[in-house]
Amino acid sequence: MTLDPVLSHIDANIESAVERLLRLLRIPSISTDSAYRDECRAAADWLVEDLKEIGFVDAARRDTPGHPMVTGTMGEGARHLLFYGHYDVQPADPLELWDSPPFEPALEDTPAGKVIRGRGASDDKGQLMTFLEACRAWVAVHGALPARVSILFEGEEESGSPSLVPFLRAHADELRADLALICDTGLFDRDTPAITTMLRGLVGEEVIITGPDRDLHSGAYGGPAANPIKVLSRIIASLHDEDGRVTLPGFYDGVPEISDEMRAQWEGLGFDAEGFLGAVGLSRPAGEADRGPLEMLWARPTCEVNGIAGGYAGAGFKTVLPSKASAKISFRLVGRQDPLAIRDAFRARVREMLPEDCKVEFHEHGAAPASVMATDDPAFETARQALSAEWPRPAAFVGAGGSIPIAGYFKTELGMDSMLIGFGNDDDLIHSPNEKYDLRSFHKGIRSWARVLAALSEKG
Amino acid sequence: MTLDPVLSHIDANIESAVERLLRLLRIPSISTDSAYRDECRAAADWLVEDLKEIGFVDAARRDTPGHPMVTGTMGEGARHLLFYGHYDVQPADPLELWDSPPFEPALEDTPAGKVIRGRGASDDKGQLMTFLEACRAWVAVHGALPARVSILFEGEEESGSPSLVPFLRAHADELRADLALICDTGLFDRDTPAITTMLRGLVGEEVIITGPDRDLHSGAYGGPAANPIKVLSRIIASLHDEDGRVTLPGFYDGVPEISDEMRAQWEGLGFDAEGFLGAVGLSRPAGEADRGPLEMLWARPTCEVNGIAGGYAGAGFKTVLPSKASAKISFRLVGRQDPLAIRDAFRARVREMLPEDCKVEFHEHGAAPASVMATDDPAFETARQALSAEWPRPAAFVGAGGSIPIAGYFKTELGMDSMLIGFGNDDDLIHSPNEKYDLRSFHKGIRSWARVLAALSEKG
Repeated sequence: MTLDPVLSHIDANIESAVERLLRLLRIPSISTDSAYRDECRAAADWLVEDLKEIGFVDAARRDTPGHPMVTGTMGEGARHLLFYGHYDVQPADPLELWDSPPFEPALEDTPAGKVIRGRGASDDKGQLMTFLEACRAWVAVHGALPARVSILFEGEEESGSPSLVPFLRAHADELRADLALICDTGLFDRDTPAITTMLRGLVGEEVIITGPDRDLHSGAYGGPAANPIKVLSRIIASLHDEDGRVTLPGFYDGVPEISDEMRAQWEGLGFDAEGFLGAVGLSRPAGEADRGPLEMLWARPTCEVNGIAGGYAGAGFKTVLPSKASAKISFRLVGRQDPLAIRDAFRARVREMLPEDCKVEFHEHGAAPASVMATDDPAFETARQALSAEWPRPAAFVGAGGSIPIAGYFKTELGMDSMLIGFGNDDDLIHSPNEKYDLRSFHKGIRSWARVLAALSEKG
Repeated sequence: MTLDPVLSHIDANIESAVERLLRLLRIPSISTDSAYRDECRAAADWLVEDLKEIGFVDAARRDTPGHPMVTGTMGEGARHLLFYGHYDVQPADPLELWDSPPFEPALEDTPAGKVIRGRGASDDKGQLMTFLEACRAWVAVHGALPARVSILFEGEEESGSPSLVPFLRAHADELRADLALICDTGLFDRDTPAITTMLRGLVGEEVIITGPDRDLHSGAYGGPAANPIKVLSRIIASLHDEDGRVTLPGFYDGVPEISDEMRAQWEGLGFDAEGFLGAVGLSRPAGEADRGPLEMLWARPTCEVNGIAGGYAGAGFKTVLPSKASAKISFRLVGRQDPLAIRDAFRARVREMLPEDCKVEFHEHGAAPASVMATDDPAFETARQALSAEWPRPAAFVGAGGSIPIAGYFKTELGMDSMLIGFGNDDDLIHSPNEKYDLRSFHKGIRSWARVLAALSEKG
């Protein structure tokens, strides 16, 4: 089965592919907010229908205690590939910062070219659809896929994937393949495709501190009464030292130094740290004083505060001494850092700094280790060459700052390696207002998958 | 003119007095939120009507750039008294913590006796009405007041009183009296009335820190990109040392040590620190390690964080690295601390700790010095005896943790001393959900003012 007619078919039908993506983007499938439960289900149902249309006759919505999974299988071939993507999206707030409604997506002209604007355009609906469109083109041209392909779409990736591991365990034989393909990462730059071979893990913790059992007048009680915002601020301030290192005992256990070879390869990429920070209005690298930005993003663990709340935050001023203060804190992990040990160390720190008459409550939001891919598998070099054929510059093996726990779970639960290929750009504003996906990423992404499917159709 | 028939009249008409207070409490005159502008005006109009009904024929609403003032004058006598109270109230949120709607006040039976429940019942509508009802009784019984009485009601006390000083300056001759009476403080305990002779000042500051110019994905940027929540937490943590002392340079300039005599008087009051903290679910005094709770509340300056916000605080978890974080911070001042010097020291600290590529914005919410009353004026002893005659235990001269800047402004702008008499209890939940005012405070408060008016009618 030849590749060229498939690529031509993709080019000829790109408009209808965009139309399909816009339809999926109109469904506000926000997984972290239970108010959108029905919308998540609707997105799953939409994908089942689209898979059936492509030819995945057994496509099905698989309900879980949380949001449903979507599965399907078709094709024969020497290699069995499992493709993973997620149809759930981040919350859209702050809504007032969107230039157009987050769930009324549209194709938009920008100085940098056409973009598809809307929540989930890049993370991860647009990326997920690049693979489906590649399959659609193969089937349209040749009546079949060049390899055996199974699909696994998740609806809880943005909310800690509570149902994922149980589902993998319950259906291990059905889901186990030779290799997993995951499309939830980015290009290295606009012209350089990337296969992500190092992924940071993630520990998410919510901490709620209670001082007085009710809100108090800060004049009538300020001084003698413990203020939970002050307590929480001291705890957060204690998490890093002056050099930006995390101070939790044992936090750096299992953190490897990157090899000189890898360091050399990364330096060869000519990463523009100034431009990277300048693009978001910053100029000075924060974090570990003795590490470069690229190393910090790809190969170093971090601790970030994702949200904080307490007392009166409305208009004007209220002299309240609040009863509660809370924060959402996440740790990005690398190498062999142990997520549970780090969670324990964090909770121990909080308890140790907590005044004896204050109370603390913890809510866990996921704990996944980092994963490092099996780049010695020749399939990685095969795929790298296929990508290099599509894009202006040769593909690179890179690290990733974000966490994609699924790769770790595929390894631990199914003994299966993963290959992460994605087409997002740094300016896609994922998790921010005005998220977009370049039309170029979408179009060349579809073509890239068509090539990778062909390349992987014979065992290396 | 004799006092006893006035007291009897008050007892006979307490039910209609409560009815009037409930009508005033139904008006949600929240001054800090501009959405309630009309309601503030409505509360002012209601008071004008009530003053006219009592006999303040010249009662009038006096518009300002903010919320209106209410004024009126009646009566003749050796001493001219100016009574001050405020008709604006605190916001009612968090609404879900109210057992009954905050602006549908009702008389309620509790184990501790009948209470008037609703926002503003104690702070300050209920207190303000104790004085009007005393005047109403005097006029009803004797056709006149025992002294010349002017009224000044404010509608911006809970939002920094922006219009107050300009109004005092513009109408100094009209408002200047021999002595100001202010009803916005509390009893020392249920049986011990108090004249507050030391008031803490207040500096309110809102600080908004901007790191990246948009919300970012904490995985894609965490580490190299500055996190404004971390920056803000470090700043807040830096404001106090290990012993609970405020670390701003010069913060304690002008803070007097209290006299042994005053300390002895206060120890004589038998303040129950354990019960004071225990009542709000705490057990261990926070604040300055080497100071007692009563001294901290009445005679020591403090720094409290009244609110903090940043990033994602909704349901679930969002791995965002936020663009902004903000906090509302207030300083309580004593003695001769300079509010502007302290504001400057705070802002200097923030700027000094701010990473060079982050931005900061400040919003001021009032800056008032502490005030210490002229207790050598014999009127204070006269009033103390009048109060002692009404309550089970003799009245005490006390300090107050809360700030009532008006007393300072009367001194600086009109050269007039103030006497602070109020009937609130520590458990009134002012600034909290389920605010209440004891019926006993309201009833004996009215009787107390009837007595004080009589006592002050002749110059001591």
